[in-house]
Amino acid sequence: MEIEALADEFARRDWQEITETDDPVRFAMIGVGWWTREQAMPAVANGDLCETTVLVSGDREKAADAAASSPTVERAITYDEFHEGAASDAYDAVYVVTPNALHLPFVETAAELDKAILCEKPMEATVERAERMVEVCDEHDATLMIAYRMHTEPAVRRAKELLDEGVIGDPVFINGNMTERILELVPDPDQWRLDGELSGGCAVMDIGLYPLNTSRFLLDEDPVGVRGTVASVQEEFADVPDEHGAFQLDFPGHVYAVCTASQNAYMASHISVIGTEGRLRIEPAFYPWDDRALTVSRGGTTFDVDFEQVDQMEEEFEYFSHCLLAGEEPYPDGEHGLVDIEAIEAVYEASETESTVDLR
Amino acid sequence: MEIEALADEFARRDWQEITETDDPVRFAMIGVGWWTREQAMPAVANGDLCETTVLVSGDREKAADAAASSPTVERAITYDEFHEGAASDAYDAVYVVTPNALHLPFVETAAELDKAILCEKPMEATVERAERMVEVCDEHDATLMIAYRMHTEPAVRRAKELLDEGVIGDPVFINGNMTERILELVPDPDQWRLDGELSGGCAVMDIGLYPLNTSRFLLDEDPVGVRGTVASVQEEFADVPDEHGAFQLDFPGHVYAVCTASQNAYMASHISVIGTEGRLRIEPAFYPWDDRALTVSRGGTTFDVDFEQVDQMEEEFEYFSHCLLAGEEPYPDGEHGLVDIEAIEAVYEASETESTVDLR
Repeated sequence: MEIEALADEFARRDWQEITETDDPVRFAMIGVGWWTREQAMPAVANGDLCETTVLVSGDREKAADAAASSPTVERAITYDEFHEGAASDAYDAVYVVTPNALHLPFVETAAELDKAILCEKPMEATVERAERMVEVCDEHDATLMIAYRMHTEPAVRRAKELLDEGVIGDPVFINGNMTERILELVPDPDQWRLDGELSGGCAVMDIGLYPLNTSRFLLDEDPVGVRGTVASVQEEFADVPDEHGAFQLDFPGHVYAVCTASQNAYMASHISVIGTEGRLRIEPAFYPWDDRALTVSRGGTTFDVDFEQVDQMEEEFEYFSHCLLAGEEPYPDGEHGLVDIEAIEAVYEASETESTVDLR
Repeated sequence: MEIEALADEFARRDWQEITETDDPVRFAMIGVGWWTREQAMPAVANGDLCETTVLVSGDREKAADAAASSPTVERAITYDEFHEGAASDAYDAVYVVTPNALHLPFVETAAELDKAILCEKPMEATVERAERMVEVCDEHDATLMIAYRMHTEPAVRRAKELLDEGVIGDPVFINGNMTERILELVPDPDQWRLDGELSGGCAVMDIGLYPLNTSRFLLDEDPVGVRGTVASVQEEFADVPDEHGAFQLDFPGHVYAVCTASQNAYMASHISVIGTEGRLRIEPAFYPWDDRALTVSRGGTTFDVDFEQVDQMEEEFEYFSHCLLAGEEPYPDGEHGLVDIEAIEAVYEASETESTVDLR
């Protein structure tokens, strides 16, 4: 790779052809928590290809309050009204950001209403429900993208290009970690992430998914085997199997990823790939509020690459909107998201059975 | 920990009471390959508590050549002569640095001759032979230390102190890697490391042992369960199970270590500990020719600690000699080394059986 191109166009949107439109994709945000208000809505407001026109919440007042702060929002409706088809002329696509186990009914309604769907990851709380989501979208020919913001993060895309060009030779190992203290980030012992029914899992499901999915994206392969251990030690995590989780993914061609994730450890995130000829590392990697950095090693020489940061959520919404405007299928579709849920359930099964789970 | 103490005395030998002697420990080096000539002998020559007086080799000329370059060496003898007790008045201790599966007979003879023994790691090629080594040393009441140079590396000792003082809270995960391209380092397809009979294993046995043993040292715990995968892909590695290996160690208290090791990947080494309150990372960690560095993170603040490097082999020989002069038992004794061989064999077994191997 030319160093000029890497430097001058680090954040380039290599997926973009359409850069402006008179007909932006109009979003209904389903779920109006802090992530929607502080991350998603500002990102969409900054985007050129999309706008937020409808807010949907279980709490009418909460939706109305959030609507008041946005000049583009036309309607604030309840979940029930959404399911009844309210305001369906006012949006083209939905962004589903409710607790995991509540994703499916919103996707079902959106598909029935002929809307495109951007659904937060993990796509659902169980394999069965994730499979049903894929079926529903197939039945209604609805576009479904799972919201993996790493796929449009420039550090990850450039790392993948370097990998694909052979800069580090053949990949041998991936190493990834994502850890945080969820009860400091969200100081509520009754939060849904600690409720196994609503979340489907905790450390591995919620954040272990980042090194898992980013490994798949970088290698362009899916795991064929999974092993690992999960444990909940503190009382607050009694309802989920995984306050902590450590797992290994076997990829085709004898490439192995070792990953750790915890909801009760110091906040940190990284992913690195060791190849036969070099190494790539993104660190910090996964938290949108940390400035990402890329390190490239080869021939005994190491480049520390800092670059102008992008808003990961803006990139993601622009990419999804671009797919809709260009009539293209998003890369992380329902089938792609389903592979993660299968792998995550395999981690829990592997821990339970103390054996490798075959995913082929 | 006081920052002044960490800064001013980073490389302090906290184990040292005796700093000089008129009666240094006299070593017979058993095996006179490049490691002995270029790493061990210069380290001993620089040390205050030891000297090299005897060289033992399968090749009389090779031993004599090496002896000629050292003013302290009195005798150069063959392996057969060593076993017959030749020059046994001229040394107090042996350093065994032959191929793994040849360690035991030299340790047996040394123990019979009432010599102290510093034996390279891995201590032997199989659990049975390692157990026999422990027995033999017990029978003859011989001091046996396994040559883990990480135990006297200041970066590792200071990291352990920070950990023990609670600077990163309770440990949650360890992550370690050691990779190299053995056929570039030693361009000989017939080398003993690729001969399963002589080595007992390749990536995990030879270098995976570094993150494994350093995890044990930092946590002061032994693994209770092991899982992982090994694979030999290239033809040159056909005689050993593990050109590459990825494995996970379960430590008491739900602490997990994920480790990777390869004899055919880009040279790199690190070990990091994520705790509830912070993170420690040593990188580079394990190669004596790389300057080690320590990174300490806590409270969102990160310290990158560079420090005056020590000669790892000198530290190790001085520590072992100090133990002998002070009449103290070395920390990494035969029982300590045996735990590594058991864990390494468990990695091979876990890969074969696709299940977790219980080490309790």
